[in-house]
Amino acid sequence: MITSAQNQHLKLIRRLESRAQRARLGLFVVEGEDVVEAALEAGVQPVVALVDDERPVLERRLKNVEQCLGKLLGEVSLLAHPPRVIAIYREADLPELDVQALKAARAAGTPGSMALPSVGLALWHVGDPGNVGTLVRACDALGPAFIALSEGCADPSGPKVLRSSTGSAFRVPRCSFEDAPGRRIGLVPRAGKVLSDLKLAPGDIFVLGAERAGLPDNVRRSCDLLAEIPLAGAAESLNVAMAGTIALYEWSRQRL
Amino acid sequence: MITSAQNQHLKLIRRLESRAQRARLGLFVVEGEDVVEAALEAGVQPVVALVDDERPVLERRLKNVEQCLGKLLGEVSLLAHPPRVIAIYREADLPELDVQALKAARAAGTPGSMALPSVGLALWHVGDPGNVGTLVRACDALGPAFIALSEGCADPSGPKVLRSSTGSAFRVPRCSFEDAPGRRIGLVPRAGKVLSDLKLAPGDIFVLGAERAGLPDNVRRSCDLLAEIPLAGAAESLNVAMAGTIALYEWSRQRL
Repeated sequence: MITSAQNQHLKLIRRLESRAQRARLGLFVVEGEDVVEAALEAGVQPVVALVDDERPVLERRLKNVEQCLGKLLGEVSLLAHPPRVIAIYREADLPELDVQALKAARAAGTPGSMALPSVGLALWHVGDPGNVGTLVRACDALGPAFIALSEGCADPSGPKVLRSSTGSAFRVPRCSFEDAPGRRIGLVPRAGKVLSDLKLAPGDIFVLGAERAGLPDNVRRSCDLLAEIPLAGAAESLNVAMAGTIALYEWSRQRL
Repeated sequence: MITSAQNQHLKLIRRLESRAQRARLGLFVVEGEDVVEAALEAGVQPVVALVDDERPVLERRLKNVEQCLGKLLGEVSLLAHPPRVIAIYREADLPELDVQALKAARAAGTPGSMALPSVGLALWHVGDPGNVGTLVRACDALGPAFIALSEGCADPSGPKVLRSSTGSAFRVPRCSFEDAPGRRIGLVPRAGKVLSDLKLAPGDIFVLGAERAGLPDNVRRSCDLLAEIPLAGAAESLNVAMAGTIALYEWSRQRL
């Protein structure tokens, strides 16, 4: 039972608010039973889970669980309403895309699976954590799809990304922007070609940039083709989370 | 030139952080030149605009503009990086859907316009301001569409909604949830009917509920039909912003 704010786990949770510390220690923090349960369902146990002593949750299914005064849990929580559980996980326990296995499966004509999805999103310098989290969730719901992140993207293990991805982080495999294998379709305004006119296929990757900057010339050139989402209305552009969601929807609609 | 934190405009801006005060005074606050410019383009002038004395912006196009010490502007700003302009607007200057004119236009078979759109979203108790703002933006980009809001929705003139709607609030007409005229398509999980199998048409309204609660029985029954967005993957559901964006995309795709 944790009763002191000086407890080492509580101190570590505070320390892991920093991206640099997360990278250095290879650990990250999850708040709330929904995401912790998603991890359990993916077969992932936390390094340690602290549960509110007065509102315990998931105790039987969690290994390395410690009860903690609710007040202290509230003090390290980043949420408006402190959760019943805060847990520390290993980065290495998040699913990684096995690029070689995916290439082999495609060569063999095997259909996609959650571990080896037939479609993906590749994000170029998307810094907004809410957008990255929403797209991780879209990969999970509309795919299954993998997600490839360039440097300069929001940390997929950061608190805001995890909050908007609602457990999908433990299901959607990741790889680097460069490694993602497949036909690259850059989504840009005024591309000429309309997304829904393309014949989308297994192996497609949608490449998306951040809101204002979009995709730089070298990234555009590295794409196999460019397409646009036609905008009838007045807004300058869709945000990247909306554009990526629409692309995955269109891809799965054509598959139905 | 405003040099004191006791200035009445600065005090009013602080006061308008409260939803109750916004409702009472019929005023709201906009931060940043992008949204202020969108208002100008919609022909809307602020009650007053305060611009940073060292980084003035849009001064010639704004009436009732006052310079203000950047430091003081920063103190009332809710943004991480204080903007160059903060302006106060009248609620009454936001576009309202003319329901009678829309019905008349439809009866006459007139095509949709920004003021009288052929499609709309109706949100039931969507409390998250980021989701409401994203959907206002989607109405603007993928429509033009109107937006209908039930009570219990996030305040469309609140700071977080305005931030994620990025100027679209001055273009997308609003009405109450009950008043929205048209064929109501409730979007719910496991509806049986798939969205892309429907023949979507001018006059459609997509009805969406909040993430966990969804649409209550009486609202479902008030819909003309129910449809689902098929989810291939594992995520429980899409969030309401993604679902509404997909619905408007599908509607406009069928119109192309």
